[in-house]
Amino acid sequence: MRFFSDNAAPAHPKVLEAIAAADRLDTAYDGDEWSRRLDGAFSKLFDTDVRAFWVTTGTAANCLALAALCPPYRAILCHKDAHIEVDEAGAPGFFTGGAKLVHVEGEGAKIAPEAICAICDGIRNDVHQVQPALISVTNATEYGLVYGASEVASIGGLARQRKLALHMDGARLANALVSSGDDIADMTWRAGVDALSFGFVKNGGLNAECLILFRTELADEIAVRRKRAGHLLSKGRYLAAQLLAMLEGDLWLENARAANAAARALATAAPDRLVYPVEANEVFLRVTSRESDRLRSLGFDFYDWGPGEIRLVTSWNQQGEGIEKLASAIAAL
Amino acid sequence: MRFFSDNAAPAHPKVLEAIAAADRLDTAYDGDEWSRRLDGAFSKLFDTDVRAFWVTTGTAANCLALAALCPPYRAILCHKDAHIEVDEAGAPGFFTGGAKLVHVEGEGAKIAPEAICAICDGIRNDVHQVQPALISVTNATEYGLVYGASEVASIGGLARQRKLALHMDGARLANALVSSGDDIADMTWRAGVDALSFGFVKNGGLNAECLILFRTELADEIAVRRKRAGHLLSKGRYLAAQLLAMLEGDLWLENARAANAAARALATAAPDRLVYPVEANEVFLRVTSRESDRLRSLGFDFYDWGPGEIRLVTSWNQQGEGIEKLASAIAAL
Amino acid sequence: MRFFSDNAAPAHPKVLEAIAAADRLDTAYDGDEWSRRLDGAFSKLFDTDVRAFWVTTGTAANCLALAALCPPYRAILCHKDAHIEVDEAGAPGFFTGGAKLVHVEGEGAKIAPEAICAICDGIRNDVHQVQPALISVTNATEYGLVYGASEVASIGGLARQRKLALHMDGARLANALVSSGDDIADMTWRAGVDALSFGFVKNGGLNAECLILFRTELADEIAVRRKRAGHLLSKGRYLAAQLLAMLEGDLWLENARAANAAARALATAAPDRLVYPVEANEVFLRVTSRESDRLRSLGFDFYDWGPGEIRLVTSWNQQGEGIEKLASAIAAL
Amino acid sequence: MRFFSDNAAPAHPKVLEAIAAADRLDTAYDGDEWSRRLDGAFSKLFDTDVRAFWVTTGTAANCLALAALCPPYRAILCHKDAHIEVDEAGAPGFFTGGAKLVHVEGEGAKIAPEAICAICDGIRNDVHQVQPALISVTNATEYGLVYGASEVASIGGLARQRKLALHMDGARLANALVSSGDDIADMTWRAGVDALSFGFVKNGGLNAECLILFRTELADEIAVRRKRAGHLLSKGRYLAAQLLAMLEGDLWLENARAANAAARALATAAPDRLVYPVEANEVFLRVTSRESDRLRSLGFDFYDWGPGEIRLVTSWNQQGEGIEKLASAIAAL
Repeated sequence: MRFFSDNAAPAHPKVLEAIAAADRLDTAYDGDEWSRRLDGAFSKLFDTDVRAFWVTTGTAANCLALAALCPPYRAILCHKDAHIEVDEAGAPGFFTGGAKLVHVEGEGAKIAPEAICAICDGIRNDVHQVQPALISVTNATEYGLVYGASEVASIGGLARQRKLALHMDGARLANALVSSGDDIADMTWRAGVDALSFGFVKNGGLNAECLILFRTELADEIAVRRKRAGHLLSKGRYLAAQLLAMLEGDLWLENARAANAAARALATAAPDRLVYPVEANEVFLRVTSRESDRLRSLGFDFYDWGPGEIRLVTSWNQQGEGIEKLASAIAAL
Repeated sequence: MRFFSDNAAPAHPKVLEAIAAADRLDTAYDGDEWSRRLDGAFSKLFDTDVRAFWVTTGTAANCLALAALCPPYRAILCHKDAHIEVDEAGAPGFFTGGAKLVHVEGEGAKIAPEAICAICDGIRNDVHQVQPALISVTNATEYGLVYGASEVASIGGLARQRKLALHMDGARLANALVSSGDDIADMTWRAGVDALSFGFVKNGGLNAECLILFRTELADEIAVRRKRAGHLLSKGRYLAAQLLAMLEGDLWLENARAANAAARALATAAPDRLVYPVEANEVFLRVTSRESDRLRSLGFDFYDWGPGEIRLVTSWNQQGEGIEKLASAIAAL
Repeated sequence: MRFFSDNAAPAHPKVLEAIAAADRLDTAYDGDEWSRRLDGAFSKLFDTDVRAFWVTTGTAANCLALAALCPPYRAILCHKDAHIEVDEAGAPGFFTGGAKLVHVEGEGAKIAPEAICAICDGIRNDVHQVQPALISVTNATEYGLVYGASEVASIGGLARQRKLALHMDGARLANALVSSGDDIADMTWRAGVDALSFGFVKNGGLNAECLILFRTELADEIAVRRKRAGHLLSKGRYLAAQLLAMLEGDLWLENARAANAAARALATAAPDRLVYPVEANEVFLRVTSRESDRLRSLGFDFYDWGPGEIRLVTSWNQQGEGIEKLASAIAAL
Repeated sequence: MRFFSDNAAPAHPKVLEAIAAADRLDTAYDGDEWSRRLDGAFSKLFDTDVRAFWVTTGTAANCLALAALCPPYRAILCHKDAHIEVDEAGAPGFFTGGAKLVHVEGEGAKIAPEAICAICDGIRNDVHQVQPALISVTNATEYGLVYGASEVASIGGLARQRKLALHMDGARLANALVSSGDDIADMTWRAGVDALSFGFVKNGGLNAECLILFRTELADEIAVRRKRAGHLLSKGRYLAAQLLAMLEGDLWLENARAANAAARALATAAPDRLVYPVEANEVFLRVTSRESDRLRSLGFDFYDWGPGEIRLVTSWNQQGEGIEKLASAIAAL
């Protein structure tokens, strides 16, 4: 059983069914009936007018948003361990035309308003230093921590006050939401989020992610940037259908609940080993190399995460017996 | 029946089956077993060592290749009606960091060595004028004309002589090959092609295209550029499986033959109305607006293409009765 | 005597004096007293509030303006022989992050509103084709023709109507103004120009050009872009002092009058040989190669400009006997 | 007396004389006789074949070099306080097309091979993380510390071993050289430096800096990039003449010696207040705000540099009585 990443999990059967059901001739690009239903479906979900753009990767969703929110000569404030900083091959620099990422520190890849203020205050307001244009937060974070809606709202308030935009990398937003119990509108636009990378692939999708614009006036620009970056697929209905299938009957929440429950089960097995509280579907454990060997010998696979630590990411389809066995194995270490 | 574009056709059932068969956990990105089989499968097809990269759009395939072959301060020679020039939202400028597209003229979007030479000779060799770095040809062209292998070889020879690279946009390469009867190796690397955008989506694929590098030393750079452009999907197996299904039993050739046959049937119905010879799966006809209204009233849809002309693109699944009816309708105009 | 380009002429003595007079300690960059006087001096000249930025090349002035007026995903409409298109090594692509230059045709590098309209109308309004963002005109043109104020106003009106910005490359604006007799305000902002590259180096300056913003709200962005492009010199006073010296007592107009007069003298010597009317300080003549050899043997140097044509550019310091000799030599051919 | 920056000092009289002497017609751009002498003059100075390019700012010199040495998808390793990181408005991102700056720590903006290794070792070698392409060091550093030739050679050795290029920002190289007593060849190319931004403006120049390429095969690319960035001035002789004047009779070393001596005099006055050893022409002192007020009331101006610290930069023309007065005033605090 593999716990490398929710990235590697299979797609949910309903997603595959939706793809098959979309397999007929329609208009190319995003002119098809599925794509044309997205704005409405997501506007309903968010209880406000949004513009929804399918893309195939979180990197594309993140960086299209960053490019629209940050001119090439300004900076993006993010955690030093943010995905956009460490795991996207410099994509933000490419999409924005050379904007700078400025690091904010914080436990578990979570950033606090105070830390953001400190960074901003350290930037001289002149033409020599790069002035910030926006804040990007990841929810749940790269270490599985969750910002509650009120925490996002604090950052959003700060952003408004400093005239900065706010982007949320929600590759695991579903996991964050079912963990915090917050309303999706409170977690996003009501908290000041301007653009959201709404993740589905880690949560049972096949290859459709969604970029949500709350600042709908950016939609035309994003549409062009998507095309220009080679992200306007010619048969868009196969992406749109995936997203609609995920929303249907709240499949996206159901999947996230399953993944979170699996992580919680593992966390409960070894509360003293946790590097971070387990708030979503990632579990970081302190283990010796003998202990990690032991787990691997029992058929569990995962990443080492620095010396003496391992990372286990649970997926929508990892439930029941397998998880129980791993939990027992961890408890028995 | 719609003849807007082969872009809009459904995916072939075998492609969908392959996707379904790949729906199990494997390694993320391109570490899965399907993706790892691509280099071998395409090397066999091309009878030489190649590196094969799945991407989701022709624009991505084209522009990743262009960026690796052309530094930002040089130019790409292409036909003024090339897809990269007119239909990719300026993607070449984005991917290369501002390289210039220089136009070559030629009937039916086909360029001849002499025309390329004339353009090159008109560029002063100094730092003020942008020097060319590569030639890009589309085969079949945007108007459905086909370069035979020997024609490509003439351009390839010129490219070598002028120290230019050669890229082929093969969004409809399958259609060109079944039309010319040439060998795929003769049409590409043996003719001097350095990188090929090998199209599958217009030919029955769902959303997988393939960038083929004959200059395999560029592979590491392309791998990074693909990631950096947000084109490294996390569940790559669903793309790789499509490509393998297309190669299996030469499905890609079978589909192209069907599409070309349909186009030929339409062409035969109205030889005097043809704007260009029909060599692949595109048919450009001279019709009055009354005549095009007539065709539409019979249930056929297509684009107007300038005054007095229409474009009909046939797809892998358009055969039999529908095509015959349209052919008759055209003949009866 | 050399007529290659006004680029190569010496600086006017008063410019050198001004540099020497500025040779004392002051604040770095553009905080010095000379730089701080520029906005006022140019606002007075233009009879409206402007922001004036010294730079060292016309390319920098042009491309900083283009970058502020055109996002990377849109296009700049300019003549196919415009300096930004043919003689700046692709600088517009670099500064804008990959915007496209779209060519407009017209005699003598002059573009007419109708030609601009035709190009605009040919661009489909969708995400696949690059939409125009601005028009750039050169006055005097690369072939020495002059747009009168009312001609610029026609283009400016069209620009407003089509929601396009308007940039003027005024590398030889002084020559255009003394030729047309128009008021500088009528020729620029009152005609709808948003940003002007105001040339001084070809007109007796040493190495200071000036970017004038009529849309002053772009000033902060331009200030940052100038720094970011390495164009914020640390001892800016030596540039500002040059510009002030050129404005002082209308030296810039005096110099342009001298250069234009020299060109007119040459044109008068051979009215039948003129390729274009001589409206500024460039003279294009039809001569045989024997004739051009003859002129060279008499000690006159200049560029061949295509087969059977030569280009002579006159400078602020070319007057009197030398010009008369050349005029006689041309007349005697 | 002002100690804000050597950036603000006047130009040396011999530099002005050289400009005046160059004030005659010659070939435009860098085709004039002064520009054509640069390669030879600098090759002699460095005792090896180099290519020398005049530019007008250190930012231009730095970033043209970085762009030629680092593809857009790779990273530059530099100190977190390096000028390219904190004081160039993100110019490296602009010139390289989005390359990343990765921070190395070290006292006084000096980086050690071990620190570089640690950073490199922390970067996973895959397509998700940005791989380093070069190291950039500043000598003297932004805090006035000097790398000796052997220290540079250690970094150069590491660079070779890790297949990284090495760039030196030598805005104050003259100050470093007269401080360390090292040979200029040992300090640069013999130590593994590939490209050097050789500073003259802070050292008595007017507005000419010089980019030196030891890897001469990059010269053609740099020449194009310089033009493309708007840094190919049309009357280049006025820049080349400045550089030649600085080399003439070792004026550049004489000026640096004067500036360093002034700094040393100030340092000697207050050894206990020094934040960093004074090795070049920058003096960082610990003073209370009352003390800094006192100095200002005596007519000395300078920057506060964080709480309780001030920065004094001495220039080539600050010697004798003024420096003695300031030294006494500091000693008397």
